[in-house]
Order: sequence, then C-alpha cells, then structure tokens
Amino acid sequence: MTVITLLSDFGSSSPYPAEMKGVLLTLCRATIVDITHDVPSHGIVQGAYLLAAVAPTFPAGTVHLAVVDPGVGTTRRPLAVASGGQFFVGPDNGLLMPAARAMGVPRAFVIAADRFARRPLAATFHGRDLFAPVAAALASGLPIDDVGAPVSAPVERVWQPPTRASGMLRGQVVYGDSFGNLVTNIPGEWLGDLPGSLVLEHPGGRAAVRRAVTYADGTRGTLVALVGSDGTVEIAVNGGRATDTLSVRVGETVTLLHTGPTSS
Amino acid sequence: MTVITLLSDFGSSSPYPAEMKGVLLTLCRATIVDITHDVPSHGIVQGAYLLAAVAPTFPAGTVHLAVVDPGVGTTRRPLAVASGGQFFVGPDNGLLMPAARAMGVPRAFVIAADRFARRPLAATFHGRDLFAPVAAALASGLPIDDVGAPVSAPVERVWQPPTRASGMLRGQVVYGDSFGNLVTNIPGEWLGDLPGSLVLEHPGGRAAVRRAVTYADGTRGTLVALVGSDGTVEIAVNGGRATDTLSVRVGETVTLLHTGPTSS
Amino acid sequence: MTVITLLSDFGSSSPYPAEMKGVLLTLCRATIVDITHDVPSHGIVQGAYLLAAVAPTFPAGTVHLAVVDPGVGTTRRPLAVASGGQFFVGPDNGLLMPAARAMGVPRAFVIAADRFARRPLAATFHGRDLFAPVAAALASGLPIDDVGAPVSAPVERVWQPPTRASGMLRGQVVYGDSFGNLVTNIPGEWLGDLPGSLVLEHPGGRAAVRRAVTYADGTRGTLVALVGSDGTVEIAVNGGRATDTLSVRVGETVTLLHTGPTSS
Repeated sequence: MTVITLLSDFGSSSPYPAEMKGVLLTLCRATIVDITHDVPSHGIVQGAYLLAAVAPTFPAGTVHLAVVDPGVGTTRRPLAVASGGQFFVGPDNGLLMPAARAMGVPRAFVIAADRFARRPLAATFHGRDLFAPVAAALASGLPIDDVGAPVSAPVERVWQPPTRASGMLRGQVVYGDSFGNLVTNIPGEWLGDLPGSLVLEHPGGRAAVRRAVTYADGTRGTLVALVGSDGTVEIAVNGGRATDTLSVRVGETVTLLHTGPTSS
Repeated sequence: MTVITLLSDFGSSSPYPAEMKGVLLTLCRATIVDITHDVPSHGIVQGAYLLAAVAPTFPAGTVHLAVVDPGVGTTRRPLAVASGGQFFVGPDNGLLMPAARAMGVPRAFVIAADRFARRPLAATFHGRDLFAPVAAALASGLPIDDVGAPVSAPVERVWQPPTRASGMLRGQVVYGDSFGNLVTNIPGEWLGDLPGSLVLEHPGGRAAVRRAVTYADGTRGTLVALVGSDGTVEIAVNGGRATDTLSVRVGETVTLLHTGPTSS
Repeated sequence: MTVITLLSDFGSSSPYPAEMKGVLLTLCRATIVDITHDVPSHGIVQGAYLLAAVAPTFPAGTVHLAVVDPGVGTTRRPLAVASGGQFFVGPDNGLLMPAARAMGVPRAFVIAADRFARRPLAATFHGRDLFAPVAAALASGLPIDDVGAPVSAPVERVWQPPTRASGMLRGQVVYGDSFGNLVTNIPGEWLGDLPGSLVLEHPGGRAAVRRAVTYADGTRGTLVALVGSDGTVEIAVNGGRATDTLSVRVGETVTLLHTGPTSS
C-alpha cells in the first residue's frame, strides 16, 4: 500500500491534520504516517529540515504532503515535485525543495487547482482542499506530469553552505532536538580534519569541545562534537542539554577550531 | 478497510490511547486515525467542537470513538449514534451530538454494557473496556440497532445560536487554534451583510477589524475577519496571534458591528 | 497484518519517530501504532511502565519497538525478547523486561548487530538503524531464536514490591497521568483489607483519603483512593488533580493507613 506522510505546523491538538486524513482516506487507500504537526507556526525552514531528514528513510512511491503555508490563498503557487521515486506536495515557499534535492533531481509542477480542488475551496486551508486531493491522486498512480505545468524555478531557501579551512570548520545550526542536541550542516566526515582538542565558537562565546562517537562518551556534563544520525556534526552534552549550556539558536553560525597539536 | 477515529483528553503521552488501539486491533481490522488526545482535561465542549469539525471529511462507514468522560463509571449512559452513514461511540454527555447533527439526522442508542464490556470492566476506563469493543463491532458490520435500546433524548450541550440584525453579527468563540485564530459560530456568508469598516466588540473592549479573504491580507499586525475553513467567521491577525491581541476566550460572545457607510 | 508499536523519548515533534517508520515500511508490511514518543528524556523507568501497561491490550504477534536509550552506541547490548506471544525490541537497560514479564515468561536474545544493522550504522540512532530492521524481521515472521544468542540475565530495574500489614498498605508511585492521578503499584484487591476511613502518608505529609470506585465519587475536591484501570491503587481528586494537591513524585513511597473502626 502506498505511504502518504504528513508534516505541518497545524498543531497536534488541532482538527486540521485529521481533516486532511479524512479527505485522503475518502479519496484513496494509503498508509498514512505523521512526520509531525508541531513544526513552529510558519516555520518553513524548520519544516524543510525535518522533511529532508525523514524522506530518505521512506520507500519508493511515498507521497509527502507538507503544509507550512503562511501565504495560503495568496498568489504563492501550489506545487507537486517528483524526485528519486518519491513525491512532494505543498506550497511553493521553500518547504519542499531541500527534501526533493536530498532524494535526487527534482521535477516540479504547478498544481492545476481547478482540476483538483474540493468545492468549495477554503482560502485558508489548501492542505485539506487542494494538497490532500493531489496527494491522494499521486498515491493512486496519477503521473506527475498530469498535475499541472512544469515549474522551472521553484522557491528555494538554502542554508549557507558549510566551509572549511586549515584547522577550522564552519556551518549553521539547522535543528535543535528534544534532547537539546544542536544539529549543524557541517559534514560529519570533515571532523577527521580536526585532530586534537577543539574549541567551539558561537555567537555567545567560546567553549572547549571533546570529539566523541556516542552521547555517553566522556564524563557527564562534557560538551562533545560527534557525527549525528543524519551524517552531520552535532554538538551535545553527555547527560545534559547543549541548548541549555550554549545560547545558540537555529540559523546561527558555529565554528569548530582545533587548538591542540596537528598531526601534519 | 473501515476507518476508526479516536478523540480523547487522555494526553498523547499517556498509555490510554494505545490501550484503546490494542483492544481495537485485537477485535477488528480497521484503519485507526487519531483526531487528537490533547483535548483539555474534561473539555467536553472543546472535544465536541473538534469532532464536529472533523467528521464531515471522513468517508461513509467511519466509526468515531470519542472519550471525554469525567463521569466515567457513574450513571451517565454509554452511547452509540448513527448519523449520515457514520457512527459515534462515547459517553452521553454532549460530546457526540454536535458531530452527529453535522452529519445528518442522529439515531442514538444506549449501549448494552453487559453484551460488549471486556471482563473485568474497569470503572475508570470505559474507553478501553466498553467503547472500544463497541466501536470494533460497528466497524465489523454490527447493525447499530443491535447495540442497545434507542435513546430519545441524548444529552446536548448547544452553543447559543448566532444572531444578526442591521449592521450587527453576534456569536460565540468556539475554538482557538494553534495559530491564535479565534473561530466563531457566526456563519461565514453573513459577513456579506456587513459592508464597510468593522468593529469587534468583545468582553475586553472594542477593536477595529478589516474584512479579509486570507490570513496574509493587509499589513502585518492587522486584525482581520474572514471565512475560516469550516465556513464560519474567524478573527485573525496577519503574521500574529489574535489570541494574544485580544483577551477573548472560548465560550465568550463577540459582536461584529459595521461603522462605515452601508451600501443600502 | 502484524502490529508494530513504537515507544520512545524522541519527542513527537522530532524527525526520529518518522525515520523509524520509514525504515519499517520499507522492510515490511505492518500496522504501526505509536504508544508515545514523549517519554521524559532518558526516562527508562517511565517508558518501562508505559510499555507494561499497554502490551497486554495488543494481539498475539505484536512487535513492540521501544527506544529509551541513553547508552546508544556504547557497550549496552541490543535486545530482542519473546514473551506471551509478543515480541519486544530495544536496548538492554531495563526498558523491556517489565512488559515482557507482564506478558509471560520472557526469552531474551542479544541481537546479532552485524546481521541486521543498516549501513552505515549511526552510533547515535540504533532505533532507526538496528532495532527497526529487527522489528521488521520479527513482524515478517523471523523466528526469535534467529535474532542472536540467548541472554541469561537481561538488565532489570524493578520497583520495590508493595507490602501490606494489619491496617497498612505500602507501595510506590509508578506513574502520574495527564489528569493528575497518581498510579501506585499496590494491588487493587488489597484495598478490601482497609475498611473504614483512610489516611495517606507520603513524603510531604499526611492526608485523609476516601475510598471510591469512580473519579466522580464524593464531593468535588475530595482526595480518593480507587482501583485504577491497570488494576492497582490510584490516588485521585474528584474534579481536580492529585499531583497538584499532594507533593508526591514518581518513585516515591506512599502508605495507606486505616483510621476508622475495623469490621473484624
């Protein structure tokens, strides 16, 4: 059975996720999986991160219905994207493209709203009245080319690419998880470039950091840098919360510097 | 496969929703969909609103198992209701009837507890031990008439009906969503009666309101009145939260007055 | 279709539960049910309670995938346990055994990580890369003996057993639910030993308690002791929250004393 995932900022105590599921289950047979409905309100960047982290674990044919949509009902375009054997449906505001790029080479289409929208189409809830019907159609086998006209330049919101130089790695914090771990966009394999002791520079100051493999490495309370589960560098505290120890927020820049003797 | 939805005030971190699902999946094959388990504790009115908002999006045959049940184990009756091709199972305390009325003409029955209850029947958890078995039976095709004796007057908790007069619309706030939007029970089509500028009267004072179609209409921070996704008038703030701007709570009365020139 | 339940401390707004579901749905056909992902961070004891409360309601063949795993990537062993026709997969830290013992006589095995792990195996996320593949294999019919070598002494964290004497019942608070009810490990049938009025001794003092059958017994605000839905003694407040009235926490000892005339 085809899988449809749902991601939104609607709130898991609101009626809106269930309204989308009702429409989906009326229109198609599919296994529905919630990614989360607790993306911060209007948090397009956070939602894009979560979708890109999750998509690669799902099987071919999966349809991702993602709605963080502060511009609902305005001129922002409704989008369907095929990439790497999966499909992404949602607003054209940057939410979908990081996940689509993580899966392969995206082909994007503007949804022909007249063909797919429920009647009446609520100007405030395209998730239920437009995106869910399109997701159901794709899950039922509709070819992506039949969704609408190709889009050459979907909206993209990209992170500043990580950089490295001798003894220095720099990137951005892209997520803070429920354990207080800070996920960066610095490739995990770059950590091998930094032998010896490390220092973390962040907007609030500097801190000594220990290289680690697991969250339990070192003594309790130690600040550690390790390769996280999506392959990038994470900053964590053994038995604690890095988000409490450091005043660093999503979107801010962090730099790892080596301070000990180099091996070269 | 038949759909069974679940709604409760048990809390999504509690074991109780999963215990109901275990019973359901032991007794029948069904697609289970959570509406939410984070209804405020004992929030019958809030739960009734959510169920009524969601039910119309679900397919025929859906069984809604809803448990906000401060009187569990007392003399309050266990109820099963058929309406508009769907079924509603839960306590007879007003939780089910708004949704049942939204779907059609309800036929209500008192559940014959002796026939359906698990042994032992916990006096504190009819959701698991009585309502779930009945929902599973209905999902498996049991005729509603076989659930128990017909009920002529199930408990109803009704909102004060909205009213309108020349230049005035009045209703109640029935829901505040995660975006801070205030949903009223004033029919959306009545907004057409109020041309020109608007003023919102609420228990905490008065405020100028702009007519809008989408949440993004007007400049940021503008208070807007628009037709929400369930067809009633919503009060929102472009880029903000109406619940922060206005001190209005669910259950309170709001009045929209026109202050500009009428078109008549 | 086989049922796989998920329980973790990952947080329901994190990408991690969905990543596990993506892996499961790639590897097998199963009905996935969330118990909760909001176990307190590293709350092994709380997670163990929840799993043990929920497991008995699920059908034979169910696979429970439970991950509260502060030692992920260290020498703590990965475990698969069969008991009472169900399966439990997760870290060997005490999380699984109370549920396995609740279901029957457990047979535990150390997972042969080399045979089951995804490549690369993230040192920080065995839930996705090791436990999910094993859960999928068990759901697809793999015999439990093929998972790895038998374990004679899996880690157990046991509650202090409840005790009783003349006019006295003593146990520990094992859970505080979203209604503010305090669940103890004192067997509910022992309440019959205490006729007359009761006093609750707890670390913060003493309080009069009324015997009750339902949460609504007595007048509002009354502290009551009743048999909860998992068969043990609960302390509750009619129309209120026992956790607000009493300063008692999970893990603390409570004693019920009878103060009125005995019937003997």
